[in-house]
Amino acid sequence: MSNQLTLYTGISPYSERVEIALLEAHAKFTRYEIDLSNKPGWFQSQVNPAGKIPAITYGGPEVPPDQPSPESVKLNESLVLVEFIADLYPESGILPKDPVLRAKARLFIEFVSTKLLQVFRAGINLQNVDILVQAFEEIQALLPPTGFAVGEFSIADISIGPFLSRLELRLGHDLGPWPAGTGEGPKILALLHQPKLTRIWEYLKDVQARPSFAATFKKVG
Amino acid sequence: MSNQLTLYTGISPYSERVEIALLEAHAKFTRYEIDLSNKPGWFQSQVNPAGKIPAITYGGPEVPPDQPSPESVKLNESLVLVEFIADLYPESGILPKDPVLRAKARLFIEFVSTKLLQVFRAGINLQNVDILVQAFEEIQALLPPTGFAVGEFSIADISIGPFLSRLELRLGHDLGPWPAGTGEGPKILALLHQPKLTRIWEYLKDVQARPSFAATFKKVG
Ligand SMILES: N[C@@H](CCC(=O)N[C@@H](CS)C(=O)NCC(=O)O)C(=O)O
Ligand SMILES: N[C@@H](CCC(=O)N[C@@H](CS)C(=O)NCC(=O)O)C(=O)O
Repeated sequence: MSNQLTLYTGISPYSERVEIALLEAHAKFTRYEIDLSNKPGWFQSQVNPAGKIPAITYGGPEVPPDQPSPESVKLNESLVLVEFIADLYPESGILPKDPVLRAKARLFIEFVSTKLLQVFRAGINLQNVDILVQAFEEIQALLPPTGFAVGEFSIADISIGPFLSRLELRLGHDLGPWPAGTGEGPKILALLHQPKLTRIWEYLKDVQARPSFAATFKKVG
Repeated sequence: MSNQLTLYTGISPYSERVEIALLEAHAKFTRYEIDLSNKPGWFQSQVNPAGKIPAITYGGPEVPPDQPSPESVKLNESLVLVEFIADLYPESGILPKDPVLRAKARLFIEFVSTKLLQVFRAGINLQNVDILVQAFEEIQALLPPTGFAVGEFSIADISIGPFLSRLELRLGHDLGPWPAGTGEGPKILALLHQPKLTRIWEYLKDVQARPSFAATFKKVG
């Protein structure tokens, strides 16, 4: 099998996960943007039946991304793709060698994803801010005193960073399910910046300073 | 670190996943049953804060399972644990060596879990049986013509088998959210055994015939 790799991506934190992983691996790949508001028919029928980004074609002949070959393997689901890239490029170091650290990285992803989902379901607003503060505390409690989630930069930081960063960005820009111009977003953000939550913001800054992260995140509004 | 491994388990398809993986790996481990209707306090405070089985302690001194050592690593989440065992025991073969097959195994787990969850949410009953039939067809479409989900027996079969098997068992025993004694379960099961679904039952039989599966499943009612 050839190692042709095409990433179908776009404005999406899930897609960012995969882009970061590919940059960390210094992988050669073709990047193709899918406009979610105007999805081409071939994408769903020939790349990802679920119609979602990110998706990857791997192997098969070199073809234009909008004419995917039936011979390539079609893969999707951002977490599966991040692990796939870690497996293809073990020298990237994004998957720790130690089985215990691997398990901890995967647990971190599972725990934080579930927590953030709970928060989003409960609704983010000033009335609910305690739920968000508590989620941040619980996430923070999993972090070591310094450094990334399990020590070295890993799939854990790749998978969670885009979501924490987007939350910060949206609150800062006052984007949320409240009337525009109320300043509710920045107020929530200020409450999240209380002293007992210092560590999580320091962590997020470390993640954002990672070149692969910076290169990927700035593309997205 | 020692390679002490204790599994906290019980009547639970999630726990079965981990037991099957440990048997496939011929791992040396201590098996400790947690009675979910009468959970010991030390389990939640010292092993798994979420209070759920399965959970593992790894490393640290040899101690009685009901006196876990602070020195051992505490891990949980069945899928994380199955991958952990695959990483600890690469010779078990339950994680394919080929990155593409690994990704396909993980996608199979994700797809089938999501499908079954959708079905359970919609409610299993005769009125809804089309949803279940369609889910079975979609799962079946992922299977190769013969053999296990991605060829050799793998984490994919380990993760999904206990859930499909339990569904079969419950329907056969007429256990479900309908009035007892109506025979609705067996009727649904009969509808699932239609000719176009032959392949998925053949697959399930292969999984059930696997010694690690048989040894684990028969313990559970
Ligand atoms: N579970 C998927 C979620 C991917 C996802 O939801 N992608 C969104 C963009 S953020 C999408 O493509 N939505 C388009 C659609 O559903 O039509 C993953 O982890 O990759
Ligand atoms: N996501 C968890 C689910 C585990 C789970 O739900 N376990 C149930 C038994 S089937 C449990 O321990 N429930 C006890 C409780 O929540 O108190 C996993 O995959 O391990």
